[in-house]
Amino acid sequence: MEPRISVVTLAVRDLAASRRFYLDGLGWGAVVDVPGEVVMVQVGAHVVLSLWDEAAFAAEVGPVARGDGVPPLTLAHNVATPAEVDEVLEAARAAGAPVVSAARTREWGGYSGYFADPDGFRWEVAHNPGPVGRLLLP
Amino acid sequence: MEPRISVVTLAVRDLAASRRFYLDGLGWGAVVDVPGEVVMVQVGAHVVLSLWDEAAFAAEVGPVARGDGVPPLTLAHNVATPAEVDEVLEAARAAGAPVVSAARTREWGGYSGYFADPDGFRWEVAHNPGPVGRLLLP
Repeated sequence: MEPRISVVTLAVRDLAASRRFYLDGLGWGAVVDVPGEVVMVQVGAHVVLSLWDEAAFAAEVGPVARGDGVPPLTLAHNVATPAEVDEVLEAARAAGAPVVSAARTREWGGYSGYFADPDGFRWEVAHNPGPVGRLLLP
Repeated sequence: MEPRISVVTLAVRDLAASRRFYLDGLGWGAVVDVPGEVVMVQVGAHVVLSLWDEAAFAAEVGPVARGDGVPPLTLAHNVATPAEVDEVLEAARAAGAPVVSAARTREWGGYSGYFADPDGFRWEVAHNPGPVGRLLLP
């Protein structure tokens, strides 16, 4: 099995709220948009983000574990400069992100902050000046 | 904010077990490998999968929600033919995946099955003959 992620699918509790946040708020375009079912956005050359209604997700994958705290994953959006980190976090705030954590310098040498989407999924907005950071920028 | 995922980070409870599964079992190579902290694997042209020790994850992002059920996301690995779906699921089983769900034909026209990694994160192995599927193949 070659190392490759084609789709990141998030189980969302209110697809209309997710749609408002990602499409209307952040201004992203959908490659698939089926009200009440799924919204898909291209987020890389061969990568799609899928926002899937939780009931449909649970029917195929299984009941979703919930509890107090954050979901056990983050999605990072890397940018070329620290200033862009602050700009993107501000854009997320303007789009209605329910949580925005200001960026700070990280011990690995970068600069990053977080915002949450309507389901609490955390996005890290990051500038990474190291070799992995250079690999990530298109 | 442009639509782009740079890194998918999973909070893992036993990094040594994750390392055995992904690196030794599936044979993936790491771009970063710090025992007890993090393993990173390149999974796309500008995309990295990060397996991050849960304690470190929680210290930066927050306590992780746990409960009965599956994590609220899946990662899909798309392939070019239905036969490859079965081959990859078998490779995951041979690598020690604790759960493997046989592939089946899906109502959206494709063919897919799932396996779980040591933390229960579900990977969907999929063949999608439609336009989104063609977009996903490198």
